[in-house]
Amino acid sequence: MTSVRPRGFFSGRTVADLGRDMSAGVLSAADLVDHALDSIASLDRPLNAFVTVDAEGARLAARQADAERVAGVYRGPLHGIPVAVKDIIETAGMATQMGSAHFAGHIPDRDATCVRRLREAGAIIVGKTTTQEFAYGPTGDRSHNGPSRNPHDTARMTGGSSGGSAAAVAAGMVPLAVGTDTGGSVRIPAALCGVVGFKPAYGAVPLDGVFPLASSLDHVGVLAGTAEDCGVAYRVLAGLAPAPVAADASSLRVGWLVTDSPALTDPALTDPAVASLVKAAFPDSEEIALPGVAELYRVYSAIQGSEAYAVHADRVAQSPQLFDPVVLDRLHHAGEIPGWHYVRAVEARASFRRQAAALLDRYDVLALPAVAVLAPPVGDLDIDIDGSRVPVRDALLTLTSPWNLAGLPALSVPAGTIGGLPVGAQLVCAAGREEMLLAYADRLRAAMSG
Amino acid sequence: MTSVRPRGFFSGRTVADLGRDMSAGVLSAADLVDHALDSIASLDRPLNAFVTVDAEGARLAARQADAERVAGVYRGPLHGIPVAVKDIIETAGMATQMGSAHFAGHIPDRDATCVRRLREAGAIIVGKTTTQEFAYGPTGDRSHNGPSRNPHDTARMTGGSSGGSAAAVAAGMVPLAVGTDTGGSVRIPAALCGVVGFKPAYGAVPLDGVFPLASSLDHVGVLAGTAEDCGVAYRVLAGLAPAPVAADASSLRVGWLVTDSPALTDPALTDPAVASLVKAAFPDSEEIALPGVAELYRVYSAIQGSEAYAVHADRVAQSPQLFDPVVLDRLHHAGEIPGWHYVRAVEARASFRRQAAALLDRYDVLALPAVAVLAPPVGDLDIDIDGSRVPVRDALLTLTSPWNLAGLPALSVPAGTIGGLPVGAQLVCAAGREEMLLAYADRLRAAMSG
Repeated sequence: MTSVRPRGFFSGRTVADLGRDMSAGVLSAADLVDHALDSIASLDRPLNAFVTVDAEGARLAARQADAERVAGVYRGPLHGIPVAVKDIIETAGMATQMGSAHFAGHIPDRDATCVRRLREAGAIIVGKTTTQEFAYGPTGDRSHNGPSRNPHDTARMTGGSSGGSAAAVAAGMVPLAVGTDTGGSVRIPAALCGVVGFKPAYGAVPLDGVFPLASSLDHVGVLAGTAEDCGVAYRVLAGLAPAPVAADASSLRVGWLVTDSPALTDPALTDPAVASLVKAAFPDSEEIALPGVAELYRVYSAIQGSEAYAVHADRVAQSPQLFDPVVLDRLHHAGEIPGWHYVRAVEARASFRRQAAALLDRYDVLALPAVAVLAPPVGDLDIDIDGSRVPVRDALLTLTSPWNLAGLPALSVPAGTIGGLPVGAQLVCAAGREEMLLAYADRLRAAMSG
Repeated sequence: MTSVRPRGFFSGRTVADLGRDMSAGVLSAADLVDHALDSIASLDRPLNAFVTVDAEGARLAARQADAERVAGVYRGPLHGIPVAVKDIIETAGMATQMGSAHFAGHIPDRDATCVRRLREAGAIIVGKTTTQEFAYGPTGDRSHNGPSRNPHDTARMTGGSSGGSAAAVAAGMVPLAVGTDTGGSVRIPAALCGVVGFKPAYGAVPLDGVFPLASSLDHVGVLAGTAEDCGVAYRVLAGLAPAPVAADASSLRVGWLVTDSPALTDPALTDPAVASLVKAAFPDSEEIALPGVAELYRVYSAIQGSEAYAVHADRVAQSPQLFDPVVLDRLHHAGEIPGWHYVRAVEARASFRRQAAALLDRYDVLALPAVAVLAPPVGDLDIDIDGSRVPVRDALLTLTSPWNLAGLPALSVPAGTIGGLPVGAQLVCAAGREEMLLAYADRLRAAMSG
């Protein structure tokens, strides 16, 4: 199976490769920015990964990065590396429009902490990537600037809500992109677009300057070609030391989660081809039943919906016409969730956290598919899985959202393709074992592509 | 103004007095239990403070306490002291009916932790006190075993929900009683019945075995004739060392809170006579505006209602006829609170906590009336304050419930009477300064009665 996706300059080049080339004087930061801008110019028309490209600002920052390097100032592994940032994250002086007509033309006067940390680490922000409106939805096809499209088949969704970030990395327009993940919004588009997407533990990366979707579930995450590159960006975003702590990923206890009902309506609604492809990557894993996934999804939905409506209630009352109709419809439903459902959901979340912690006492890594299905066609609201009609939103979210409830580090790594469309393997670990997870993910990726 | 209330054996006798008499051999624990049972037999008919009296169990426990004392075993200041426990708190082998037909005849097989701690400290549980059904309401007149009645005027409410505990102490039937306080359920009946009621900081006393009303607001508290006695019981319930840490309460900075809207509908709806009587106890206080009390009450109601309905939803669906109609009506309204209101209320609570913490950086003690009105007639749903009709529930709760939101130690101490009906001064402090608060409250009580 060969991929048909466009290959920009950064396809197959890691952050470490680029850093070596810059250290060797083979490439400059200015060259990298030019390559990024050229790749965007030639590849982004059908993909719509970018909503804003800051050519001038990126070129200026690249010249500064190069001048610093000449002067002997080295800011670390992101020095001079072009990065794209999801358009729900504030960038000083650069439009930040939340994928929404409500924020059309909005230019923040300060950087989100995560953006400030990127800049301080020498990264060059080349532009802002398409986000589902207010990050509210896992499809990536509901945005004021139009749907982002999957580089593997532009008739299909990127997934979302960090769809532009995934498409930008998958098409090689940038080596690295920042996203956010409230129920899977980094891991879902990473899986559907065939890149690595990593959501650190809840709270690991500060959320200030990130437009809230559901504050108890929101995470900042990263997308790249490799888990190693995700690790480089993660350490910067989380304010950690740049060198990874050595992690032994050679003989891990891996638990394969057998979920009973990923898509709410049927006990077997992970696409069997997807499940079987991902499972093949874990020949030595033990099977563990994870019952109640449909119930976990209801728990997730009650928390996410109530918190999201608390953010948007005034906007819904005052300017409903500025919302995308699908997003508005979902908000209306979210506003009707009773408070006592929210209270019970918070209790159920606490119980699931204990259950997940107990599993992670027995296993180093939990493995399952990232997404139950292949990328659906842009605009579709329902999908056929194994003979049943299922809402696309539910099919995309059920396997990722439990790990937002749990607040655990989770990652999607490419596990192969079916009919040219990527499939992601999802890995989950205990907080504090991120380096082990990242190392294991790269070992897995190497094994699968080897 | 003289009180007309009945005076049982324990009227005017403190726990320390009783302990001295037992040490001197003047009284035994068995004598105290007999006095308690006699006082209950002669005084409780109109008051309905007790729903269950365990004469046999109390006599047995008293004989054991006396035998221990003879054998040189001394369990501390509660050794041999009769105590009453609100009927929402589980007592092994003793009926615990939650004031509700749903739990008629219910006998738990284990003690709540707070009850176990009382027993381990040598206290004698003489019986269970009348609670508002499921502690859901501040009036004390909605219980499956009938309303508790105010010892100062049996046509009037005790307040609630720990109404029986307040009446039992106020009438001298026991020296000490345990209650619970979710929005004022210890302090309100303490104020209306003329005793001291103390709610420690949130989490200070374990809640296991206490039937939940609203889990993020529930507190176990104590009622007694003096703050010193509340302190003795508090230290036992909280698992602290029995001897109080010495606290200097001689030159404190006291802030008098001027609330704008205690009863939701009008900026001036604390009964002016109540406000002026309580204020007179704090001649050296500085006035501090506390705006937004009406909004705080809405915040409280959204949290309390959502959490309460989460507890009772299945019971409402399956056996609505077993609820008191007023309680059921309130539950129906609670079930309709939207989740996003709850989310916003939790955010507002966090903001109020910061505001209260800032005040308690500037003042050692915050003072205000405990309750905005005098005890209303049993059964009334509305009350006239200064020319306006106000729901009784709101009038009773508005000044106490903010301190459940804040989770701060708070206490009501008698501040005098108006027309023979008691008025309570409420004192609030930072967590960790409970001993200072209790010492100050007794200094105040002595000054007011002297």
